[in-house]
Amino acid sequence: MLPTVACIHRGLFRSCAGLSVRMISRGIGQKGILANRVAVVTGSTDGIGFAIARRLARDGAHVVVSSRKQQNVDRAVAALQGEGLSVVGTVCHVGKAEDRERLVDTVVEHCGGLDFLVCSAGVNPLVGSTLGASEQVWDKILEVNVKAPALMLSQLLPHMEKRGRGAVILVSSVSAYVPHVELGPYNISKTALLGLTRTLSLELAPKGIRVNCLVPGIIKTDFSKVAYKNEVFWNNFKEDHKVQRIGQPEDCAGLVSFLCSPDASYITGENIAVAGFSSRL
Amino acid sequence: MLPTVACIHRGLFRSCAGLSVRMISRGIGQKGILANRVAVVTGSTDGIGFAIARRLARDGAHVVVSSRKQQNVDRAVAALQGEGLSVVGTVCHVGKAEDRERLVDTVVEHCGGLDFLVCSAGVNPLVGSTLGASEQVWDKILEVNVKAPALMLSQLLPHMEKRGRGAVILVSSVSAYVPHVELGPYNISKTALLGLTRTLSLELAPKGIRVNCLVPGIIKTDFSKVAYKNEVFWNNFKEDHKVQRIGQPEDCAGLVSFLCSPDASYITGENIAVAGFSSRL
Amino acid sequence: MLPTVACIHRGLFRSCAGLSVRMISRGIGQKGILANRVAVVTGSTDGIGFAIARRLARDGAHVVVSSRKQQNVDRAVAALQGEGLSVVGTVCHVGKAEDRERLVDTVVEHCGGLDFLVCSAGVNPLVGSTLGASEQVWDKILEVNVKAPALMLSQLLPHMEKRGRGAVILVSSVSAYVPHVELGPYNISKTALLGLTRTLSLELAPKGIRVNCLVPGIIKTDFSKVAYKNEVFWNNFKEDHKVQRIGQPEDCAGLVSFLCSPDASYITGENIAVAGFSSRL
Amino acid sequence: MLPTVACIHRGLFRSCAGLSVRMISRGIGQKGILANRVAVVTGSTDGIGFAIARRLARDGAHVVVSSRKQQNVDRAVAALQGEGLSVVGTVCHVGKAEDRERLVDTVVEHCGGLDFLVCSAGVNPLVGSTLGASEQVWDKILEVNVKAPALMLSQLLPHMEKRGRGAVILVSSVSAYVPHVELGPYNISKTALLGLTRTLSLELAPKGIRVNCLVPGIIKTDFSKVAYKNEVFWNNFKEDHKVQRIGQPEDCAGLVSFLCSPDASYITGENIAVAGFSSRL
Repeated sequence: MLPTVACIHRGLFRSCAGLSVRMISRGIGQKGILANRVAVVTGSTDGIGFAIARRLARDGAHVVVSSRKQQNVDRAVAALQGEGLSVVGTVCHVGKAEDRERLVDTVVEHCGGLDFLVCSAGVNPLVGSTLGASEQVWDKILEVNVKAPALMLSQLLPHMEKRGRGAVILVSSVSAYVPHVELGPYNISKTALLGLTRTLSLELAPKGIRVNCLVPGIIKTDFSKVAYKNEVFWNNFKEDHKVQRIGQPEDCAGLVSFLCSPDASYITGENIAVAGFSSRL
Repeated sequence: MLPTVACIHRGLFRSCAGLSVRMISRGIGQKGILANRVAVVTGSTDGIGFAIARRLARDGAHVVVSSRKQQNVDRAVAALQGEGLSVVGTVCHVGKAEDRERLVDTVVEHCGGLDFLVCSAGVNPLVGSTLGASEQVWDKILEVNVKAPALMLSQLLPHMEKRGRGAVILVSSVSAYVPHVELGPYNISKTALLGLTRTLSLELAPKGIRVNCLVPGIIKTDFSKVAYKNEVFWNNFKEDHKVQRIGQPEDCAGLVSFLCSPDASYITGENIAVAGFSSRL
Repeated sequence: MLPTVACIHRGLFRSCAGLSVRMISRGIGQKGILANRVAVVTGSTDGIGFAIARRLARDGAHVVVSSRKQQNVDRAVAALQGEGLSVVGTVCHVGKAEDRERLVDTVVEHCGGLDFLVCSAGVNPLVGSTLGASEQVWDKILEVNVKAPALMLSQLLPHMEKRGRGAVILVSSVSAYVPHVELGPYNISKTALLGLTRTLSLELAPKGIRVNCLVPGIIKTDFSKVAYKNEVFWNNFKEDHKVQRIGQPEDCAGLVSFLCSPDASYITGENIAVAGFSSRL
Repeated sequence: MLPTVACIHRGLFRSCAGLSVRMISRGIGQKGILANRVAVVTGSTDGIGFAIARRLARDGAHVVVSSRKQQNVDRAVAALQGEGLSVVGTVCHVGKAEDRERLVDTVVEHCGGLDFLVCSAGVNPLVGSTLGASEQVWDKILEVNVKAPALMLSQLLPHMEKRGRGAVILVSSVSAYVPHVELGPYNISKTALLGLTRTLSLELAPKGIRVNCLVPGIIKTDFSKVAYKNEVFWNNFKEDHKVQRIGQPEDCAGLVSFLCSPDASYITGENIAVAGFSSRL
């Protein structure tokens, strides 16, 4: 990516050589179901988050991409802008208050409001077991996976409220339902998100903001390599749950696109598995 | 509607004055996400089922509409054809083997295969209580609500299998999770459907057929009048669950359209509430 | 079993050579936590039902044992009476109205009221698959597993109500949560029971009658042989769920004893797994 | 309470004027189902925790009572010892590593091993809403309600393992399932415990240690006053769920006693409501 391009693109949402981003992206986005809507997707420079950011942008939304490293943000923004999509990027470690603040500033500055927040950022230190986890491991996992989405939403809420509607999507994991014994506190943080979805949905219903939860299964990402590259585990998993193939990040993005769309306007508080199976009634 | 038109439309799927239905409907359907796919929707002459049939047809599918009475079938088919949609109708009481057979015949004759089955037909004799229900009431409810979807699917399966993919959507109710004390055996039949979804999804996964379940809340239909027209009940319900408005049949149709679409191709075995709230983790 | 003993014991509950059963059984039962309470356990001549009947009797209850065959009833009654327990037996195919009526008569005649109903009778024709199940198989499974407990309870309810308290225990299966693909409609009938428990608990709460559900895992019974004698299945199952041993019928009986006891007087509507694992939040 | 008695009782578990506690308490405990077993109950100087400590002691166990304030510990220990029960007390704020260490020391010194851990300590700052909760509120709730039970168990585990069996009981809340909009992060911490129960049960199954979760409803404690003293809330709650009376701490203790007993030896990973209703399948 050329620095100049990056520079130009960073300013896209506000204005770009006299053209608003809406004009520039008209060719792609405006026909989309999410035309002129604004989305923040955390943890969106690769894997599931990236696929979600791309999909929402393809659906016509202006998307704020973010993750912890500038380099990754630059790469993702370049890739998406290279497809003609309306995106802007900012570095954001969701566990840091000042980073969340910066993300809010980006929204205010570039977008003038917010319709969708997708909390895809998460951490999994692969601790081995719950009982072997140190206090530091617990703190990190609960901070990034559970607290951060709530705090991020608190800070962004004023910008969603003024739209009079909106949608929030949290990202849990099937390990919330079918705990993987090697994933320890990670499982628990993902179960907590099922509850966070429910409670937030009640709090935000009167404001016209829906809150739902994507529950991914084994998806082809760096994160899940440890699972699907373990042949014994993966074959047993497929056999147990009659799963026919590995999931793709785009499978997750499809659900998120739906949950943001008007078609889902009566769906809130719901946890939905994208896993090739479901494990609960 | 003019009788001649009705007549012409009835024959649409097979052939019509030398034109295949696919050509005729090209103007509407072919651009849709479900273009050239075939759907059967039972109980589809009014309420949720009708909205689903309309939506799938608007998405480009050829839809077989059905319910128990010829008159209702005629009316629904006329209405949908009047919108230029590609539908055909047949009378089908899902609890009767010969009616199910006739529906299969319709599919074979007109459609040459089947992609989607939406089991919207159901019965609710409003028995007052589980313990007050007679053996006859139990039989009717379990037959129509639980057995019939399974038997219908068994009979249609060969026509889905040859497509190498497909989707089945059962229709449960939030009373499966939050039982309404007045609805007795109906609640139980709807809980059974949550299990039917899970078991069928495992059975059909190897055939490329996904099975999911729509779980409607209080939707504005004749069926739910007894609930939402009872002001005390409805106000309490809204307050308890922070539900902001009554659901529309179209809200349900939106989810079904999604579940049939490629975007949901990694979602199976899942029960999803369209209720303005959710009541389970 | 000597016929004379059988004869004497059959009359136990009403009177026996001038001694009430309560006196005769005093040595065993009266100290028990369920002393002077009356329990009906269907399907109780072997397996889980038999263990439950024995346990409740050991806890001091007078127990009505039943199943489909006179021979099995006689054997079970003899065995329990041989332990000095207060039991009476009657043949009852729970799917037959006249048999249920006879069971009610036995209760009225011998016991003068009813405190506990444990619906352990069930059927599993091992159909192979849901979609392969004939209408007859569906009818039988739904009739015996779902309808019969409700109808039985309806008929016995007047005799529970006059006690002003009571407890009902239904018997589901972990296959309600983790469906076994070979068990087809059986899975679904067991999911239905989870809902029946919930609805009945609401209906009966105002009458002081609690309704809960035992959810057995793989228990060492004739019924489960097909599972635990299949080495591949059983080893995978144990590994998947970290189950350490096969369950014993007595494990189930322990929960039922608890659910009937005053210690459980604030527990109703609950489905509890006795399975060496749990599969739901 | 006389200081001398307190002093004597404090030393009970190790030795007391040459008599082991087991001898002194023989008259009460040894006949109980938990005779000679050792239990730690955190947060046990009043409310649910106190009732659990008392019940386990009445069942014959030697119980380590604890909570944050010396004064409360002294009072609780005196009350229980006044009933002739075998208890010892120690101050323990479960969120503090050094306090947890002190509790471990107490177990080592007085009990020589541990059979049961009941994590009753919890915190509810009544934040009003999830989105209004500060980072400090989140930290405190997650630390005390979620992390602390896991860390406490980690530290106590070596002393449970050498017994070759054991039981852990976590304490969640029905607000984990039916979130109360006023309780914000508390709801989420309680949902997390449902997951912690599941994951811990898998981790500890091979060691013969079972992990289950008590899910209290509205129980008559200081903690719940805000709920049951709010007449409108409490009446609606009772009506919605057909709850007939407020729960008593002893209702919770009854379940915990059962879960520690041999009768529950095949039950693990299970979340069980003691609430006068249940809200999940």
